[in-house]
Amino acid sequence: MSDEAIVREKLDQVPAILEGQGVDVWLTFVHETAVTPDPCIELIVGTNCTWQSAFLLSRSGERIAIVGRFDAPGLEAIGGYSDVRVYDESVRPALLEALEQLNPGTIALNYSASDPAADGLTHGMWLVLQETLAGTPYADRLMSSAHVVAALRGRKTPGEIERIRAAIAETEEIFALVSAQMAPGLKETEIAAIFHDEVARRGLVTAWEPGQCPAVDAGPEKSVGHTGPTELQTGPGMLVHTDFGVVKDSYCSDLQRMWYLLDEGESEPPEEVTAAWNAVWASMDAGAAVLRPGVQGHEVDAAARARLVAAGYDEPMHALGHQLGRSVHDGGTILAPLWDRYGDAPRGLVEENQVFTLEYGAPVPRRGFVALEEDVLVTADGIEWLSTPQRELWLVG
Amino acid sequence: MSDEAIVREKLDQVPAILEGQGVDVWLTFVHETAVTPDPCIELIVGTNCTWQSAFLLSRSGERIAIVGRFDAPGLEAIGGYSDVRVYDESVRPALLEALEQLNPGTIALNYSASDPAADGLTHGMWLVLQETLAGTPYADRLMSSAHVVAALRGRKTPGEIERIRAAIAETEEIFALVSAQMAPGLKETEIAAIFHDEVARRGLVTAWEPGQCPAVDAGPEKSVGHTGPTELQTGPGMLVHTDFGVVKDSYCSDLQRMWYLLDEGESEPPEEVTAAWNAVWASMDAGAAVLRPGVQGHEVDAAARARLVAAGYDEPMHALGHQLGRSVHDGGTILAPLWDRYGDAPRGLVEENQVFTLEYGAPVPRRGFVALEEDVLVTADGIEWLSTPQRELWLVG
Repeated sequence: MSDEAIVREKLDQVPAILEGQGVDVWLTFVHETAVTPDPCIELIVGTNCTWQSAFLLSRSGERIAIVGRFDAPGLEAIGGYSDVRVYDESVRPALLEALEQLNPGTIALNYSASDPAADGLTHGMWLVLQETLAGTPYADRLMSSAHVVAALRGRKTPGEIERIRAAIAETEEIFALVSAQMAPGLKETEIAAIFHDEVARRGLVTAWEPGQCPAVDAGPEKSVGHTGPTELQTGPGMLVHTDFGVVKDSYCSDLQRMWYLLDEGESEPPEEVTAAWNAVWASMDAGAAVLRPGVQGHEVDAAARARLVAAGYDEPMHALGHQLGRSVHDGGTILAPLWDRYGDAPRGLVEENQVFTLEYGAPVPRRGFVALEEDVLVTADGIEWLSTPQRELWLVG
Repeated sequence: MSDEAIVREKLDQVPAILEGQGVDVWLTFVHETAVTPDPCIELIVGTNCTWQSAFLLSRSGERIAIVGRFDAPGLEAIGGYSDVRVYDESVRPALLEALEQLNPGTIALNYSASDPAADGLTHGMWLVLQETLAGTPYADRLMSSAHVVAALRGRKTPGEIERIRAAIAETEEIFALVSAQMAPGLKETEIAAIFHDEVARRGLVTAWEPGQCPAVDAGPEKSVGHTGPTELQTGPGMLVHTDFGVVKDSYCSDLQRMWYLLDEGESEPPEEVTAAWNAVWASMDAGAAVLRPGVQGHEVDAAARARLVAAGYDEPMHALGHQLGRSVHDGGTILAPLWDRYGDAPRGLVEENQVFTLEYGAPVPRRGFVALEEDVLVTADGIEWLSTPQRELWLVG
């Protein structure tokens, strides 16, 4: 399915979402999106805008785009907007005219403290809108589009799910190639280079900044977190952890995979490694067991968290899972505890066709860190594993 | 010079800029910058932030970063911030503490209606800040950082200028390769493919979305604007126009180059083509002649615009030039008329070490469109051409 077809597929979802949430018009209002990209632009527009631009989608299906003259041909080529209005000097008169024509009782805007994917309205453009609407009835009809955006990004279309599957398939192939080369004595940076060479050979890009994708953590001396590979070397008796994803055709994968390097005389990992492995999997499975449409995100995290803590491990200082799509952190409902830093996102409801990561970890003294991550699709009554779960540690040596 | 060194070079410029503008603290306040990137993050941080993060730079040189736990190692590796404060649950207490410690009389935030490069504060994060500062004296000390950001992005360091020169050099080499293959009967898409193959071979990316970079416009039937190459074919008696740039090591080039395909019996372009060519160059040179530190952006555009109109051509519906740097439209002062869509940006003062494009065009009936674009560096008393100006049409056949 082409990029343009996916944009049109997403636009087709909008009226039902607005209807379901009682929103009359959803307004995306941007400037120079190559510099300050509203994440909704790639979702419902599909090309960058140079000047101040407005995209109005109504509950009854109207699609009005108001753009500077030179942006119109690129936009028209995508075929998402039947009504493209062009201006030369100011976006404001055309925007007011469109609002008067639609006369919405509620206007949803892209701002949210909790959900970055629904927070693409810049404060500067908010001020432009305030000035433009001053003295009109529309000034008092503004609301956040966070629930609209969360629903739209979250409910993956068939075309989107197909692309995510393809990204995961590439990722698993790359892990297999890395696995074939895994050995004691490799530096973290050398392992990362194997990933990067393969990403380049396949014409992909990494799912987050390449200096930290893959994360490669060899053994117990590495501080786990969003940091890049170092000169640390793999060695016998050590866990090697990687966190890696790719973007293929604009959609992401995000997986963690692990190896254990057998020590002299070992034919299996030491007991404490296996115990941590089993505890992490038991907790992720406990989360997976309650992950289904209608549950709140924090309930899923809580089920997994309780299981890991009950097994005697520290509480993870991060969420069990986030959504995955055009962005590796795709916004909307997350499977996280009710901490301030997650805002309202953990209270969101899980819906069918959302794609989540499931990721948890536990340290093993003197060995390293066990951490796993899988990608799953929410089905009508549970989940489908999109990745092939790594149910066994990969043993080397 | 490494990426990290360029971030540190930019951070070193900040205190003098804050001093010059009477700003006590410049606060960059973001979340999930991979999804909603504040353009200041790559400039003064150099790595993405997952959770709500605050970067405080003071007039007296303090540099305080407040980030979620897992973002700290990546940030510390860059070495830009001497004081990295880590949180797990909420950014707010640490942010208030840092403000109380610095006790600024003015706090500049990244919002601007005119300058997208200074408009990275999302409206959601503005609301978080309002809530956080409610009841403190700091709530009334907020202002736009637009002039700070414009000065910082605009005043290119030696490391930045070196990178822009390198991007332009690659671009000119690619134009030369395309020129060697230019011939009648090529489709616009085939010409674009030559550019794209060469971009990939060199490990570069295009300076704007690849579907529209290069723009390729063959002959008079093409609507000029931000649109991609089509199936239109080059032919004798036709102007072929391209607009193209690359990103090399995070810095951009942006150039337009033109060919004329000689018709049977012609040894030079027809008179009307030469007349348009000369008029466009005369107008760009008129702009270049007044481009120097201290002049306002719109004065430069006006000089060029008047010359082109006096020669009998329509007024261009775009600016004479924009700044160039990490972004192909790098914000700050632009060389544009005082139209609403450009906001205050044309009133900005030109400064030494800014890099601008100069670009104007004129249609030639039945032949196509003459449009040129060069990249220039503002020096102490004028300009240096960074690109090799295309003073002659490239003739084919």
